[in-house]
Amino acid sequence: MNNKFEEKTISSEPIYSGRIISVKKDQVLLPNGEIASRELVVHPGAVGIIPITNDGRLIVVEQYRKPLERSLVEIPAGKLEPGEEPAVTAVRELEEETGFGANSFTYLQTIATSPGFADEVVHLYVAKDLYRIENPASPDEDEFVELMTITLEEAEQMIEDGRIFDAKTVIAVMWMRKNLLF
Amino acid sequence: MNNKFEEKTISSEPIYSGRIISVKKDQVLLPNGEIASRELVVHPGAVGIIPITNDGRLIVVEQYRKPLERSLVEIPAGKLEPGEEPAVTAVRELEEETGFGANSFTYLQTIATSPGFADEVVHLYVAKDLYRIENPASPDEDEFVELMTITLEEAEQMIEDGRIFDAKTVIAVMWMRKNLLF
Repeated sequence: MNNKFEEKTISSEPIYSGRIISVKKDQVLLPNGEIASRELVVHPGAVGIIPITNDGRLIVVEQYRKPLERSLVEIPAGKLEPGEEPAVTAVRELEEETGFGANSFTYLQTIATSPGFADEVVHLYVAKDLYRIENPASPDEDEFVELMTITLEEAEQMIEDGRIFDAKTVIAVMWMRKNLLF
Repeated sequence: MNNKFEEKTISSEPIYSGRIISVKKDQVLLPNGEIASRELVVHPGAVGIIPITNDGRLIVVEQYRKPLERSLVEIPAGKLEPGEEPAVTAVRELEEETGFGANSFTYLQTIATSPGFADEVVHLYVAKDLYRIENPASPDEDEFVELMTITLEEAEQMIEDGRIFDAKTVIAVMWMRKNLLF
């Protein structure tokens, strides 16, 4: 882990402790000896799953995203429960959001979504050899998602027209273009 | 703009109003008539610049990211000032963070970084035909960045070893792989 230009914490003021995020304000010591303040959002972290069907299509979900006041098409994703292994979250969220299980889960990479103000990281997995689960676990009761199975070309078209524009899903589609040649 | 599964705001409680972010808690009406609460981080939005040198290398900056308590290698980026056009922010941040200007700025795409809890979007630009600015504007006084000019292969290696892992920079490197053949 690289600590170049480290900003040591002098003091930390809790601002908000919510259901999903918390917020704090830290006073930090800069490399030049000056003091600055940093507003920090603390998030449990999440997984994103890239579910590829046997004919090479991508399963995505459409859902309303209140912060952006619009619905987005995204790869299935979900937050880590406290102490949960990301690989376990990935299996759980794929089932809850799509009703599918996967015989093959492969860790791809972890991304930091907003390193300027939040600690959220998203662990990305590729899920293949999918099968339908008979009585799948349901999503959280305040989650409404619609499933779509789309080709790579359709996914790239959705990036063009703005229906797909969240970072993890853009990465998923670029990964497909680079790695899947059907 | 698609509003499928829209969550209408019933009430909104301000939680925190800070220097960069603010936080609010909304009560929303779900599609099934139930009520749920949503914690929302409001951010001014940002730009990310993909500066490509004439020999096809990428200019990146290394900086400490307090939320993650480590330093990251990222494409140059910065927040929008109030009312500022993203294209203007892109020119300003490229100069401040790298000391370079560009004769060619091309808008690439906009990404939502954390649509589950924040409204931050990052507008990505490709900057080419770079030139050194003689007395460039400085970064903010609490910003410490180190410049690096790296090949595409070095960038991909940095994704492998985790020095690059923020979403916008991963997208930038994947974009280079797809579009630049040197």
